[in-house]
Amino acid sequence: MDAAIVTVGDELLTGDTENTNATWLCGTLDDRGVDVERVTTVPDRVSDIARVVNEYHAEYDAVLVTGGLGPTHDDVTMDAVAAAFGREVAPNEEALAWLEAEGGYAADDLATGTAELPVDARPLHNTEGVAPGAVVESCYVFPGVPDEMHAMFAGVAEEFEGERTYVESVETSEPESALLDRLSEVQERFEVSVGSYPGESVTLKVTATEPSEARRAAEWLDERVEA
Amino acid sequence: MDAAIVTVGDELLTGDTENTNATWLCGTLDDRGVDVERVTTVPDRVSDIARVVNEYHAEYDAVLVTGGLGPTHDDVTMDAVAAAFGREVAPNEEALAWLEAEGGYAADDLATGTAELPVDARPLHNTEGVAPGAVVESCYVFPGVPDEMHAMFAGVAEEFEGERTYVESVETSEPESALLDRLSEVQERFEVSVGSYPGESVTLKVTATEPSEARRAAEWLDERVEA
Repeated sequence: MDAAIVTVGDELLTGDTENTNATWLCGTLDDRGVDVERVTTVPDRVSDIARVVNEYHAEYDAVLVTGGLGPTHDDVTMDAVAAAFGREVAPNEEALAWLEAEGGYAADDLATGTAELPVDARPLHNTEGVAPGAVVESCYVFPGVPDEMHAMFAGVAEEFEGERTYVESVETSEPESALLDRLSEVQERFEVSVGSYPGESVTLKVTATEPSEARRAAEWLDERVEA
Repeated sequence: MDAAIVTVGDELLTGDTENTNATWLCGTLDDRGVDVERVTTVPDRVSDIARVVNEYHAEYDAVLVTGGLGPTHDDVTMDAVAAAFGREVAPNEEALAWLEAEGGYAADDLATGTAELPVDARPLHNTEGVAPGAVVESCYVFPGVPDEMHAMFAGVAEEFEGERTYVESVETSEPESALLDRLSEVQERFEVSVGSYPGESVTLKVTATEPSEARRAAEWLDERVEA
């Protein structure tokens, strides 16, 4: 299973807010064996969001959208997702019922648009806040507030499942350029892929679908690089 | 001036590395008055990088790419940028001369590819590391190691210049849904745009191209929302 993440918000594009939602979703999906192929941040603008959602829906098994839910004029994500699928938005009865039953809101008190979702969307309950999420085909729409997003994702986590991979790390003091021969050889000898990540030392990450294969390749490398 | 940022790396898409480069570039470009319209993370794969660079080059005034420079097999960014512009890569004489003069490398000792840039690219000197950057038309390619990227950006910062905007913030304990009337009114009364960002309290950000306009609108709001 592969997926793309779309994070919505001008505050991300000005660097005012760190995109912790993207990092969290990437790590969570990776743990579930899902390959994340794109993470894209777009402004609070219907045409931009709709265009990116539409493109990624055509290309990847799932699209996860966060941010831009709520009642204010810059919360346009639901309108945009509806547009991407050629649908209208309308008040969602199930979401309204939740808000009345658990949030203590009377339907008439809710700001216009709070419970408006794309027509025929599956609503997702927001246990930590007000704005509901939605699923339209394989596109999942979550709030941008991290606690609300985490809780809402937990409710649908089982719907994201790919082939698990296993990663072993090897640290070395050698520079990347000196390691090329052994990086090639380990990938010929074992069914693994290897990434190298420079920092104070170089970290080699060995990835395989079989844990024993990752371990054997990492041991092979560990014996052949300087600590 | 508008711009798009492309961050390259499997380690970003698995959530192993926080994308601090994106946040830093967004903040730095915003300070220079440049509108960042997209931030996209792509895997270490030539076709994916080339496709996104190509699309954004056609659409935005500048494209800034970080990550995937260096000698290992997963460092494919220069090949991809070359492909996006229909060019080959070739050893860059100016970059090689820097590495010999300042890095103390003999050209023959450098791993194949270290100083290979798209043909006719403008090389960017890496004062903090080895791999050079490059400029191809309006596409800027920087290393992924943050210190190297920051230093290299500083050398070309003057090439990024847009209309400066001024932001004033107002905090309120009122929920977003209660603020809608005043958010509409302030945008009618003043030449500003207003974003609202929920957290423990709600932050209202008033943005204008004139500092006095931002300040007057923020004062107007501040008098009309609950602290």
